[in-house]
Amino acid sequence: MSQQNILIIGAVALGPKVACRVKRVDPDANVVMIDQGELISYGGCGIPYFISGDVSSADELRNTSFHMLRDVKFFEDCKGVNVLLNIKAIDIDRQRKTVKAEDLKTGQEREFPYDKLVIATGSVPKRLNIPGSELPGVYTISGLDKAIEIRNEIASGKVGKAVVIGAGAIGLEMAEALSDMWGIETCVLEVMDQILPGIISYDMAKMARYHMEEHGIRFYLSEKAVRFEGKDRVEKVITDKREIETDLVVVAIGVEPNTELAKKAGLELSPLGGILVNEYMQTSDPDIYAGGDCVCIKNLITEKFSYFPLGSLANRQGRVIGTNICGGKQRFEGAVGSFVIKLFDIAVASAGLSIQTAKKEGFDSFSAFVAQFDRAHFYPEKEMMFLELVVENGTGRVLGIQGLGKSKDAVMGRVGAIAGILKYRPHVSDVSNFELPYSPPFSSAMDILNAVANVAENIMQGKAQMIDLKTFAEWWINRNKEDILFLDCREWGNAGAYVEKYPDIWKNIPQGQLKKRISEVPKDKKIVLICNTGVRSYEAQLILKHHGYKNSYNLQGGMAAVKNMGLDIVINF
Amino acid sequence: MSQQNILIIGAVALGPKVACRVKRVDPDANVVMIDQGELISYGGCGIPYFISGDVSSADELRNTSFHMLRDVKFFEDCKGVNVLLNIKAIDIDRQRKTVKAEDLKTGQEREFPYDKLVIATGSVPKRLNIPGSELPGVYTISGLDKAIEIRNEIASGKVGKAVVIGAGAIGLEMAEALSDMWGIETCVLEVMDQILPGIISYDMAKMARYHMEEHGIRFYLSEKAVRFEGKDRVEKVITDKREIETDLVVVAIGVEPNTELAKKAGLELSPLGGILVNEYMQTSDPDIYAGGDCVCIKNLITEKFSYFPLGSLANRQGRVIGTNICGGKQRFEGAVGSFVIKLFDIAVASAGLSIQTAKKEGFDSFSAFVAQFDRAHFYPEKEMMFLELVVENGTGRVLGIQGLGKSKDAVMGRVGAIAGILKYRPHVSDVSNFELPYSPPFSSAMDILNAVANVAENIMQGKAQMIDLKTFAEWWINRNKEDILFLDCREWGNAGAYVEKYPDIWKNIPQGQLKKRISEVPKDKKIVLICNTGVRSYEAQLILKHHGYKNSYNLQGGMAAVKNMGLDIVINF
Repeated sequence: MSQQNILIIGAVALGPKVACRVKRVDPDANVVMIDQGELISYGGCGIPYFISGDVSSADELRNTSFHMLRDVKFFEDCKGVNVLLNIKAIDIDRQRKTVKAEDLKTGQEREFPYDKLVIATGSVPKRLNIPGSELPGVYTISGLDKAIEIRNEIASGKVGKAVVIGAGAIGLEMAEALSDMWGIETCVLEVMDQILPGIISYDMAKMARYHMEEHGIRFYLSEKAVRFEGKDRVEKVITDKREIETDLVVVAIGVEPNTELAKKAGLELSPLGGILVNEYMQTSDPDIYAGGDCVCIKNLITEKFSYFPLGSLANRQGRVIGTNICGGKQRFEGAVGSFVIKLFDIAVASAGLSIQTAKKEGFDSFSAFVAQFDRAHFYPEKEMMFLELVVENGTGRVLGIQGLGKSKDAVMGRVGAIAGILKYRPHVSDVSNFELPYSPPFSSAMDILNAVANVAENIMQGKAQMIDLKTFAEWWINRNKEDILFLDCREWGNAGAYVEKYPDIWKNIPQGQLKKRISEVPKDKKIVLICNTGVRSYEAQLILKHHGYKNSYNLQGGMAAVKNMGLDIVINF
Repeated sequence: MSQQNILIIGAVALGPKVACRVKRVDPDANVVMIDQGELISYGGCGIPYFISGDVSSADELRNTSFHMLRDVKFFEDCKGVNVLLNIKAIDIDRQRKTVKAEDLKTGQEREFPYDKLVIATGSVPKRLNIPGSELPGVYTISGLDKAIEIRNEIASGKVGKAVVIGAGAIGLEMAEALSDMWGIETCVLEVMDQILPGIISYDMAKMARYHMEEHGIRFYLSEKAVRFEGKDRVEKVITDKREIETDLVVVAIGVEPNTELAKKAGLELSPLGGILVNEYMQTSDPDIYAGGDCVCIKNLITEKFSYFPLGSLANRQGRVIGTNICGGKQRFEGAVGSFVIKLFDIAVASAGLSIQTAKKEGFDSFSAFVAQFDRAHFYPEKEMMFLELVVENGTGRVLGIQGLGKSKDAVMGRVGAIAGILKYRPHVSDVSNFELPYSPPFSSAMDILNAVANVAENIMQGKAQMIDLKTFAEWWINRNKEDILFLDCREWGNAGAYVEKYPDIWKNIPQGQLKKRISEVPKDKKIVLICNTGVRSYEAQLILKHHGYKNSYNLQGGMAAVKNMGLDIVINF
């Protein structure tokens, strides 16, 4: 076919994908891939599992599924791609279509010609510029080489205590890795007031945090590291609230696009910093493509350019770039943002916008939160699942979903399903009638996915008036300051203990008796309705409304959510 | 609000859902629900799990998730719904808006007025009209009462051998229930040449069957029961090919809509037999609604009216009917058909059309079949998953997907995700870029869901030329009749045993050496390319094509699929 020169800068995720795809579509193309490091084509997302020891050696992250190491020889023999290591690209000459680079081993300058260029320079971790950051034992994971250093330190037995800074995905995965497999006493420091900020709601984050606390991780939220101290290596993290002794610090406060080269070449950047690309993954220079962690792409919900540094997007974009370089016209429309993480025994997943993000982005929105078994409730093996659906007021447009539960793949399945339809601008009723495959060992006839949409619709139509768990906790703490009654709609077996402990403010009327006993409910108090998951208390709310009560609030997720937040009120307040 | 009279005929799945929804939207409505049986509002889909003993008592299928029995009193107290048992509806007088019914206990005739009527008469199992069908021990599961009878028989210890007739979902679930939990020697008889006909492809069905065979179930396919024999009860099933001794027969050859009443009332029926309803679930009489197993709804893929007897659809339709009865305008668009079943340790799932069904429906279509790990291949816990994507030629429209694997929720997650987008008429590229949440414990960066679409695209563009396992087996059996070479693209460690056993027809050239050793590949033979999953053999195929070889075929799913079909050729041929 063409014999065109394809030059790829960066050989970790997107780069190799482009290279291989190009050779598959156009075997005659001359594909050269350069990288400034020694380790290429590895699964960076696997680093926490390498640190933990789940993945036994670093080479496993570099192997194919059939156990061949993806090294220079592999790319040459199996893929027909020429890979050069320790070559750092310095400058792009867009007129002459060449890239100037430095051989980091010899210091010599080299020049590479291209017909099409691919920038796959990825991201760089954000640094904490506070005193002591350069002390040994303070790590920022910037690649597999750094990960190997950390694991060597841990394996040497030197590390008894660790501090992770940042409660985003990588921070939490690292905390689990250090604590679970190596028994290191681990705490997580986060400047925001919740873990996974921007990804899940405050309530759901609290549930996830409680689960991690039960597994021995300590959290310091709304707290900031101000310096690191130590003689030969880090010994202490000083925050704005305390001193924490430690043997190791992992800084995981996010990444930013590595765009130095693109900037220098005058390519257009997004205000967020990433390289701007069109739907064909072309930069402002049509002969230069870019993808992966160094670009910004369209957020299909907000329609703004956003930054999604994810290995999965890099791989898919890589294929699109490879196709288009060879004359194809494949589109990469953008992303809705989908996310999943394993935290000990639970999965937390998200697609689209969380309620906080939706509001920040200017959507007049609310969220519905539901607790329900993940399978038919009569099926013996089942777990409680929690879903939160984010919906635009008025239009009923679904903006996002988040989930949490112990059946990890089942949580991922529900959230992944919505991830797929978000770009079609679904209405709440599309989720109400979402056609999840049904069979008792897998789902409910009215699955939790349908249920959370039904609840959202009920809220939208003014039928259901809910309170979230944060509000519930606040009201409970201030329960003596205002006229409030907690009306427990369960049977006595569940409600009794609460009534006995708090006879003045906790009342039990099983939902089936409410109509007959309606006169027992005071009309002048704020009524908080409670049951196990929020279903019976919703029925109770409808009865109250029908009888003229206007001031009732249904606790979303019920006592199941309360317990999973570690908030069990009889015990904790 | 209205105080309108709502009459509901049938109180198993859809009926109770309508009743409860109506009372929630319009508490003043007078809702009466009649049923000819004694057992109402139960999870019929749970019957196999009740038979197996996973669900310990029949009442569990009638309980709410909070352990209240959904009996007449429950509906009255908790839902405000009036339920009458043992009342059989006989005639609908659409002019006078009344329903004539018989009290089965007293024999008396009763009349019920309605403003809005709901027909929720469900389905009836198809009967096998062959000699001996009336013998004791021959069961057709028509409801919970029959299931209780079967379980009592089994529990009494009388049943050592059982024959299940029909290899659809219920037949297979019943076979597992009898065999797995009670140790009953069980065989399944099916007239078609595969299990789950119409739902999954022949190849995938063969994998599912092999799994069940490994768990001790025997199958007789393409075989027909012609009569039952026995003195006081069934002792033998006589087929067109053999005699099978048995103590119990379960006939599970499908269900058909129960439309007697609707027909008599002159309501419009579909050619398939179900009651015709519009998007608001109204029959041809706008004051009469119908839903669940007695109706036909639009198949969103074929756009034809189709029959989907599923508890999940019944529940969702019930909510829509309830809303609309109270003046709402909610739509139920139809269904794409989604399905999942647990068979011992695997899940088999499907959404939309299988390749056979697609062709039968007139779609010029093909399918791509892929084997891949369900998680990042470096993650220690992972299982092989198999997906098959059905695509329309030319347009690239995705018509369906089927999946099989041991990570059961993960299979369901992939298939459920596609179930959700099918109504938007997705293109293959929508699945290529499907934004499944990614993290190594859950998925691959290029997930199997994306991969199967990539393969489909490669097939569509003529890059990949595949053969399915059925063809592979045929070619292998006839290997001496034509000039054929099996070219194993794996390393010697995997390929060696085959080469040593079949030196004349099995050749090993690892994919990475193929370019250099291309002269060893004969140009005049049909080449079947083989590797573990089909990925390396695809690369090999591209190399062959590039060198002018036109007659090569890549084995879809590779040796992983072959092994999971029980077809391991060294052993079995």
